[in-house]
Amino acid sequence: MIKTPYLLFLGDAPDQLAAKVAQGICDWRPEHAVGQYRMPGCKADLGLPDMTLAEARAAGARTLVIGVANRGGVIGQEWKKVLVAALEEGLDLASGLHNLLRDEPDLVAVAEATGRALHDVRVPEVDYPIANGVKRRGRRVLAVGTDCSVGKMYTGLALDAGMRARGMKSTFRATGQTGILITGDGVPLDAVVADFMAGSVEWLTPDNDDDHWDVIEGQGSLFHVSYSGVTMALIHGGQPDALILCHEPTREHMRGLPGYGLPSLEALRDMALPLARVANPACRVVGVSVNTRDMDEGTARRYLTETEERLGLPATDPFRFGADKLVDALAAM
Amino acid sequence: MIKTPYLLFLGDAPDQLAAKVAQGICDWRPEHAVGQYRMPGCKADLGLPDMTLAEARAAGARTLVIGVANRGGVIGQEWKKVLVAALEEGLDLASGLHNLLRDEPDLVAVAEATGRALHDVRVPEVDYPIANGVKRRGRRVLAVGTDCSVGKMYTGLALDAGMRARGMKSTFRATGQTGILITGDGVPLDAVVADFMAGSVEWLTPDNDDDHWDVIEGQGSLFHVSYSGVTMALIHGGQPDALILCHEPTREHMRGLPGYGLPSLEALRDMALPLARVANPACRVVGVSVNTRDMDEGTARRYLTETEERLGLPATDPFRFGADKLVDALAAM
Repeated sequence: MIKTPYLLFLGDAPDQLAAKVAQGICDWRPEHAVGQYRMPGCKADLGLPDMTLAEARAAGARTLVIGVANRGGVIGQEWKKVLVAALEEGLDLASGLHNLLRDEPDLVAVAEATGRALHDVRVPEVDYPIANGVKRRGRRVLAVGTDCSVGKMYTGLALDAGMRARGMKSTFRATGQTGILITGDGVPLDAVVADFMAGSVEWLTPDNDDDHWDVIEGQGSLFHVSYSGVTMALIHGGQPDALILCHEPTREHMRGLPGYGLPSLEALRDMALPLARVANPACRVVGVSVNTRDMDEGTARRYLTETEERLGLPATDPFRFGADKLVDALAAM
Repeated sequence: MIKTPYLLFLGDAPDQLAAKVAQGICDWRPEHAVGQYRMPGCKADLGLPDMTLAEARAAGARTLVIGVANRGGVIGQEWKKVLVAALEEGLDLASGLHNLLRDEPDLVAVAEATGRALHDVRVPEVDYPIANGVKRRGRRVLAVGTDCSVGKMYTGLALDAGMRARGMKSTFRATGQTGILITGDGVPLDAVVADFMAGSVEWLTPDNDDDHWDVIEGQGSLFHVSYSGVTMALIHGGQPDALILCHEPTREHMRGLPGYGLPSLEALRDMALPLARVANPACRVVGVSVNTRDMDEGTARRYLTETEERLGLPATDPFRFGADKLVDALAAM
């Protein structure tokens, strides 16, 4: 569990997109972000107060989160100086970089000397059990996609925010590094050993109040041949009561797989629901989330109306038009 | 790749069943087994010549394979003496035990001093790629089961043997520790990190002659919530042209999952085939393999006949009645 609140490290981000992890934290857990730390040449700006390490510490920050992708896959010397100074200032470090903090001997040495923690959120830190399939109390919703990167995480975060705004009990359960950095906790599912994938999802979504919702972050797609096994483990380990179908209509082929067309929302529904009912016979598909980023507003609204009529399910772009329709559907269950 | 042929180490096996890995080698790769090594009190006997380490070496053995489960999960001192002597005699060691050879400092020291290899087949030794979904040349058949441990490995080994006996080109591709010890090579899929599962199966079954069959060892079941993600990765990474449905009709619930009933063969067909067609639109279900071990012969034959009529597919128990019907179905494709 990563200590909050955070100082968001933007480094020398070449553009706003490079800081998308930090952006996700600002969008979904603004209360976790006390300020931003930018180096000379940084082209990203989250609109947060710029702070020195000492200022951030004084403002209550507990962890410096690397909220930016690094260039060339290595942690450079300029970054390293800031990271070492942050440890010395009393901040833990958290990172989702492929280049692990724990593989940098100087960071490890300073962390040990100062008693600070290094969190590499790509690496599992728990010995997960093998899934036992026992039915758990509480309710669970999972976003499944026609493809990878169609907005499953944002859909889940919007559902969680919408339910909490209505006074419903909800917890977002992160299963990827960005989600873990946003919420401070979760399972880096793509790095878990095969035999323990479904068990790690059971561990992440334990027994809870009957009226509590776990909003489980989706990963991959049943139709994406590289990652479908991870999706499968979420469907069976998560025992969802409700599925939300996620789609990005303008995409021409599956992400990273030229030659593989996207399935229809109907095909996704017909594949995912019978699989989900193996673990939870009461599971239902309750709504559709469409990423309309690449559509103008009129086209997006027409697409959503047409989708609702075709599938007989509420459909929205939760980031653009709000998640109310989907929250309504969960509240009605 | 484990060097063959083997001396099969049976240790102090309390009964024949404890030596099932060694039995599998004798059943399917008898040419790999030059002899057996038994310690005082051993109750298993494979009918092979009993050999000392020196006799085995003189007979051409290259590797001592631990073909027996150990008691209590640790490698005891009596075993250790034999294993050290085997290394000194010039034999490599291969093991599928949870207790890894590489975690025993005395074995590591002797292996280094003698230049011998320690093979722990539960541990991946390759950096597998992420699956790319590119269509590969050659043909592939995969056994999928209504449950775990219904005979998928034996079905695959029987298919491979049957095809080779007819002069067809076939390679059994092991995906579990027993299969790897039998054939000397493969991927320990349940120990692979989630993101690389499907890629490891692609790696295992590369481009081949157009008339060559890879017989891919199945794992888990789409209906087994603990391991379904592994099965999914086999279906998408393997790109099978043909699926064989495997079933054990007398089982009362899913293995290790009380409360989970077994699916019908029809349900397995209807779940597995659309998923397989994501990666290979030409995939077909070509036959049924039934484990009839717990049925008398009349009941077994009636069950197979009834299954053939119901599903319109050839059905056999390949271990009991031969795999000819299934080989016929593959040869006709």
